[in-house]
Amino acid sequence: MAGNSFGTLFKLTTFGESHGKAIGGIIDGCPAGIELDFDFIQNELNRRKPGQSKIVTQRKEPDTVEFLSGIFENKTTGTPIAFVIYNTDQKSKDYSHIKDVYRPSHADYTYDQKYGIRDYRGGGRSSARETASRVVAGAVAKIVLKDIKITAYTSAVGNIQLEEDYNLYDFNQIEHNDVRCASPEKAAEMINLIKAVRKQGDTIGGVITCVIKNVPVGLGEPVFDKLHAQLGKAMLSINAVKGFEYGSGFEGTKLKGSEHNDLFNADGSTKTNRSGGVQGGISNGMDIYFKVAFKPVATLIQNQEALDNKGNLVEMQGKGRHDPCVVPRAVPIVEAMAALVLADFILLRRQESKEW
Amino acid sequence: MAGNSFGTLFKLTTFGESHGKAIGGIIDGCPAGIELDFDFIQNELNRRKPGQSKIVTQRKEPDTVEFLSGIFENKTTGTPIAFVIYNTDQKSKDYSHIKDVYRPSHADYTYDQKYGIRDYRGGGRSSARETASRVVAGAVAKIVLKDIKITAYTSAVGNIQLEEDYNLYDFNQIEHNDVRCASPEKAAEMINLIKAVRKQGDTIGGVITCVIKNVPVGLGEPVFDKLHAQLGKAMLSINAVKGFEYGSGFEGTKLKGSEHNDLFNADGSTKTNRSGGVQGGISNGMDIYFKVAFKPVATLIQNQEALDNKGNLVEMQGKGRHDPCVVPRAVPIVEAMAALVLADFILLRRQESKEW
Amino acid sequence: MAGNSFGTLFKLTTFGESHGKAIGGIIDGCPAGIELDFDFIQNELNRRKPGQSKIVTQRKEPDTVEFLSGIFENKTTGTPIAFVIYNTDQKSKDYSHIKDVYRPSHADYTYDQKYGIRDYRGGGRSSARETASRVVAGAVAKIVLKDIKITAYTSAVGNIQLEEDYNLYDFNQIEHNDVRCASPEKAAEMINLIKAVRKQGDTIGGVITCVIKNVPVGLGEPVFDKLHAQLGKAMLSINAVKGFEYGSGFEGTKLKGSEHNDLFNADGSTKTNRSGGVQGGISNGMDIYFKVAFKPVATLIQNQEALDNKGNLVEMQGKGRHDPCVVPRAVPIVEAMAALVLADFILLRRQESKEW
Amino acid sequence: MAGNSFGTLFKLTTFGESHGKAIGGIIDGCPAGIELDFDFIQNELNRRKPGQSKIVTQRKEPDTVEFLSGIFENKTTGTPIAFVIYNTDQKSKDYSHIKDVYRPSHADYTYDQKYGIRDYRGGGRSSARETASRVVAGAVAKIVLKDIKITAYTSAVGNIQLEEDYNLYDFNQIEHNDVRCASPEKAAEMINLIKAVRKQGDTIGGVITCVIKNVPVGLGEPVFDKLHAQLGKAMLSINAVKGFEYGSGFEGTKLKGSEHNDLFNADGSTKTNRSGGVQGGISNGMDIYFKVAFKPVATLIQNQEALDNKGNLVEMQGKGRHDPCVVPRAVPIVEAMAALVLADFILLRRQESKEW
Repeated sequence: MAGNSFGTLFKLTTFGESHGKAIGGIIDGCPAGIELDFDFIQNELNRRKPGQSKIVTQRKEPDTVEFLSGIFENKTTGTPIAFVIYNTDQKSKDYSHIKDVYRPSHADYTYDQKYGIRDYRGGGRSSARETASRVVAGAVAKIVLKDIKITAYTSAVGNIQLEEDYNLYDFNQIEHNDVRCASPEKAAEMINLIKAVRKQGDTIGGVITCVIKNVPVGLGEPVFDKLHAQLGKAMLSINAVKGFEYGSGFEGTKLKGSEHNDLFNADGSTKTNRSGGVQGGISNGMDIYFKVAFKPVATLIQNQEALDNKGNLVEMQGKGRHDPCVVPRAVPIVEAMAALVLADFILLRRQESKEW
Repeated sequence: MAGNSFGTLFKLTTFGESHGKAIGGIIDGCPAGIELDFDFIQNELNRRKPGQSKIVTQRKEPDTVEFLSGIFENKTTGTPIAFVIYNTDQKSKDYSHIKDVYRPSHADYTYDQKYGIRDYRGGGRSSARETASRVVAGAVAKIVLKDIKITAYTSAVGNIQLEEDYNLYDFNQIEHNDVRCASPEKAAEMINLIKAVRKQGDTIGGVITCVIKNVPVGLGEPVFDKLHAQLGKAMLSINAVKGFEYGSGFEGTKLKGSEHNDLFNADGSTKTNRSGGVQGGISNGMDIYFKVAFKPVATLIQNQEALDNKGNLVEMQGKGRHDPCVVPRAVPIVEAMAALVLADFILLRRQESKEW
Repeated sequence: MAGNSFGTLFKLTTFGESHGKAIGGIIDGCPAGIELDFDFIQNELNRRKPGQSKIVTQRKEPDTVEFLSGIFENKTTGTPIAFVIYNTDQKSKDYSHIKDVYRPSHADYTYDQKYGIRDYRGGGRSSARETASRVVAGAVAKIVLKDIKITAYTSAVGNIQLEEDYNLYDFNQIEHNDVRCASPEKAAEMINLIKAVRKQGDTIGGVITCVIKNVPVGLGEPVFDKLHAQLGKAMLSINAVKGFEYGSGFEGTKLKGSEHNDLFNADGSTKTNRSGGVQGGISNGMDIYFKVAFKPVATLIQNQEALDNKGNLVEMQGKGRHDPCVVPRAVPIVEAMAALVLADFILLRRQESKEW
Repeated sequence: MAGNSFGTLFKLTTFGESHGKAIGGIIDGCPAGIELDFDFIQNELNRRKPGQSKIVTQRKEPDTVEFLSGIFENKTTGTPIAFVIYNTDQKSKDYSHIKDVYRPSHADYTYDQKYGIRDYRGGGRSSARETASRVVAGAVAKIVLKDIKITAYTSAVGNIQLEEDYNLYDFNQIEHNDVRCASPEKAAEMINLIKAVRKQGDTIGGVITCVIKNVPVGLGEPVFDKLHAQLGKAMLSINAVKGFEYGSGFEGTKLKGSEHNDLFNADGSTKTNRSGGVQGGISNGMDIYFKVAFKPVATLIQNQEALDNKGNLVEMQGKGRHDPCVVPRAVPIVEAMAALVLADFILLRRQESKEW
C-alpha cells in the first residue's frame, strides 16, 4: 500500500532506494509566498551527510538537492515542491554477496517476504539513505515554522549518558563536536567509545533528546492525532528507532500525581514541565521535549551467521561501509521529522481559529 | 480538524464526551461475512468498566454497547458498523466547581485555548471515557484477527516492577487479580501500594507490557506507516501515556550490534527476539512485544492550586470520582488499540499478495 | 474498504441500513463555537422526508434526528458531532420476497457479489435512506457557511424542462409546490406527469439545478481536488445520479472559445459566467451553478423479470412502497452535498491565508 | 492544502509547472513483482505529446520520461515509483506579456487570488502540461490492470457528433486519424472544422467517450467512493472538463423505469446496459462507458480584453502556442485517469475477498 506519505495538510511523499538512480520527494501543501533559503536547506542536508568525520561511514557523496517545481523567484507558489538527490557514490559491487542472503536484524528477510522481490543493494528502500529526503523536507518545514526552534542532540551513546534536564546544557555546543552532544566532556567520552567499537567492526546504540521552544498553544488534534502521538509515530518511523518518550516519560511513571502535576502560573505557563509541553494531546506553550532510542545498527563488519533464500544458514562477513553509531547523523533527521509534524499541525490549527 | 479517526482500511471514528448523551463510534471497512460474538464484545467492554473493584474509580455504569448498523443475522455486512453506549451514571454537579477553572496537568487549559469552548464536565472529550469506544472496536478487530493473540498486562506500578522477559509469566494469571498483573506476588504488592495512594487522595503511574503472538509475516507499510510506528501512535493516543518502546527498547541502546542482532534459524524464525517481531517496519513472524508508560493521572482528591479563566490562581479540591491508578483499566485499551492496528495492516497486506 | 467518509477537514462518516435499527453519522472537524439551530436542521430533514405529498413514497416516518455529542449549551465544541435517526416505520415483511432475488437495475446483485452477504430489506445500505444522514450533516454545514447561499430546484422531469438560465426564475417558488420546481407553471405539468407515471406503477427521471451564491474567491485544491471535481463526486455519490455538469456543461462544448470566454469587469467579476464560478478548479466569486441528472429509479410496482441467487430468471412484482420520481426529494440532498463540499474547502482555504 | 494526490492504495502524487524545470510524479502502492514495459509507457506519453500533427499545438518536446526509483531489474518492487519529465522546449519569453495580466477564463486570476503568487509562464501549475504525469502513471496502471481494456475516443467536436452506441464503431480506427475519432468519416469533418477554427485564432470544444471492458464484478466502495463517482471526479479534474455522464446519462432522465431498467440474463449479465456497468456504485461486469465534456479552451490567438493586477481592463493578444481543440490530446488522459481509478479499486477489492 501507499505508506510513503507523512502529514495531512503539509504532506511529504518520498521515494528512492539506496542504490537506485535518485532519492527525493514531493512536499504538497506548503503555504505560498514563503521565501526559501536554499543555503540553509543544503546545509541541513550536509549535517546528515556521511563522511563528515572519522567516526561515521566513509561513503562520500555530494548529496546535492535539486528543486524541480513549486518555487518561483525563490518563493513557494503553493503548488507541489519536488526535489531530487541523485545517488552518485554507490558501490553496488559491495552488496552482490548478499543478493540471496538475509542479514540478521536487517529488513532483507521481511522485505522479501512482503514484496516477493527486493532491491538488495545497500538495503534498497529500507536503507537509511531515504532519510535524506526527510531532512530536505524538514528544512523547508523549519523555514515555515519561523520562530519555533527545534534542537536535537545526542544525549546518550551506550552507557555514556547526559543529565535529564536539558536546561543544564549549552545548545551552541552541539554542532561543535562529531557526536552532536550538548556536553563537550561527554562528547569526548562518546567519541572514544565509538572509535573503539568501530575498530571491533561492531556498532553501538544511543539516545537523542529533542527540545522544541516557542511553540504556540493549541497544536494537536485529539483524540487520535494528538501532538505527541504524531511525534511518536514520526520518530519511530526513523530507521533503528526502538522507543519514544516525552516529558517525564518512563521515569515519571514512578511518581505520584501530587509530585508529577505541573502547577500553573497566572499567565497560563506552568511552574514545572513534566508534561513536556503537551496536555490532552494539545500543546500548552511550554517547551516540548522528548527522547528517541536508537538500537545499535545491524550492519557489522564482523562475521555473522545469516540465512540465504533457500533456507541455509551461511557465514557472512559484513563488507561495504557502515556506521558504528548512527546517532550523530540521526540528530538532523529527528529535527526534520519534528518540523514536519509541527508544520502540519500549524496548518491544521489555522482552520479552527476562533475568529470564525 | 478531523482527528477522530484511526486506521485506513479498517477505520474507527469515535465520538462522545464524558457527560454527554452517549459515546460510541463507527467502524468502517470491517470485512463482510464475519460472525460477531456479542458476548465477547460486551465482556471486553466490561473489562474496562469502572467500579470493578475497590482500587478503581467508583463510577458504576452498565456500559452496555448497542449496535445500530452493519450487522445482519449476526454477521458483518461490509457496511459501516455503528455502536453507541449511553452515559447513564454521570454526576454533573460534581464538576460545576471547575466550570471556569483549569486543573493542573489536565486538558482543561489546552482545550479552552484551542477551541474557545469546552464541555468542562468530567473532562468532556478529553476524558478517558472515550476509550470505551476503542475497546468495542478493538473487540471487533480481535474477532477479525482470529488466531493472532494479543495479551497485555500491568508490568509495573510505581517502583514495583516485573522482570523484562514476559516468558517468565503465566498469562492466565492476568485476569485473576485486580491489577491485571501476570505475577500474583507482584500483584499483591501493587494492590497495597495503590490502596495506600488512594487513601492519600493521590495517584500513581505504571507500565503495561503487551505481547502479540501468531503474527503473520509482512505486516507494515514502510517508510512512514511502519508497523511499530503505527503501534506507537496508537498507544500514545491513549490518555496518560508518556512513552512507548518495543523489543529491546531504551535498554537496548546500550548494547553493541554483535550483542543485539537476532540470528536466524533455518526456517526464518530468529534465535533471539530483541527486534520485537518487527524488522524494517514489517512483521517477521516473531512475537511483537512492547511497553507503554502511564503517568500518574492528574485528578487528585488532594487540594491543588489551579488557574481560573480570568488569570487568577485559585485553591481547588478535587471532587467527583477518580482512579488512583488507571493502569489496570488501561490493559484492555492497549489490547484494543493493538487489535485495531493489526486489523488495518492485515487488510493492507491482502492487496499486495504475491499472487497478482 | 472504508468508503463511508466524505471530506478532509470537515468530514462526515455515515452509517445505517434501510431496515436496520438506525441511521446516522459523525461530523468530525466542525469548527468550535458555532451556535446550532436545531429547528433549522430538523426542518432540512423534513424536506427530504417521505410521505410529504401524494406524489412521493407513502412511508411515514417521524425522521427525528437526535444529537449525541459534540455540542455543549447549543454550541459546537470542535469535537465530533454524532447524530442518530431511529428507523421506526419499516415494513420488513414487504421485502421477504426478494431475499434471494436480484431486482433489475438495483444494487442487490452487485452487493451480493462484492460482500457475499447483504441485508436485503429495503435495499439495505444501498437504499436512499442513508441520504437522510447527509441532509443532517449538510444542514450543519449550511450553518457553518453563513452567508453562502445554496439553492437547488427541479429543472426537469422527463421531457418537461425549464430554461437554462436560472436567473429567469424566482427561487421563492421552489418550496411552494410538490416538485420543488422554480416555475409554478412547469411544476403543474411535472406533477401531472408524475401522477400518471405513478398510476402505471412506473417511474420517471429528471434533473436538478443547483446555484450557489456569495462564494468567496479561492476555494478548491488543484490539481485533483478541484472544487468542481469534488462537487461532481459528491453529486454522483447520490443514489440514481447518472451525470453532472457545471457552467456551460455539455452544451458549451459546441461553442468557440471566443464565444465561450467570460470577459472581466474591472473589479474581478466577469461579464458572463459560462465558467460556472470556477476557474482552474478554484472559485472566482461568481455564482457556481451545476446540473445533476437522475435516472428513473429501478423500483417499479409493475411486474419485471428478476434473477434469483441460484441463476434462475423469475417473475417478480414490485411490492412495498416506491417513489415514481425521486427528484423532488433529492433537492435537499443535492444542497446538503454542496454544503459539505464547500464547508470542507472553506476550512482548507483558511490554512493558506496570505497572512502567513 | 495538499490536493495533488489521487487514489488511496494506488496513489499518484504529481508535481510540476509548465515552465519549471520538470514535471513528474510518484506512484505509491503499485503492487510488487510487475514487469513494466517501458516502450509501452513512453508510447502512451507520446500519444499525448504536442506537435504530433498540424491541428494541435506546435510545441515540440521529446517528452521523455525517466524513472528514478521503485523498479529493479525491470520489475516493480512495491516501493514508490518516481518519474520525471524534464521541460526542454519552453519559450518563456512568450508569456512575459501576461506577467501582470489575468486572461479571461484562465486560472490566472483565481491562482493569484488563492496563493498570492503565481508562476505566470504558460499557466504554471494550472497548465495542462501536468497531465503528462497522469499519462505516465496511467500507463503503469494499465499494465497493472492486465486484461481490463480501456478505450477512449473523440465522439464530438463542436456540432459534429457520433452516434451514442459505441458498438457501432471500430476502435481500431481511433489511432489512425488526427482527432482520435472512431469514425473515419466524422474524423474528416472534425479535422476540417478544427483547421477552420485554428485559422481564426479561435478554439472549439468537444466530447470524449470512454469504454472499459472486461471489468470484474465488485469494484467500488459505497456510499461515497462509488466507482462512477470517483471516475467522475477523476475526469472533472482534467483541464477544460465541464461535464461527466455515464451509462444513459442526461438523456436517460427522460425515460421511464420500465424502459430504462436492464433485465438480467441467467448468468448475471444484463440484456441491455443503460446502467453503464455500475449498480449501486459497484461494477457489475458489464461494459463501463461514460462521456466527458470539454469546453473550448480559453487561450485564443485573437485579441481579447483582459484584466491586469491593478484593476485595469487591457487589450491582450494571445501569443505563444495554443491548441484549437484539446480533445484529441485529452483522449489518452481520459484513459489514464480511468486506469488510475480502476487500479485503486482493484487493490481495494482484494482486501474484502470472500475467502476471509
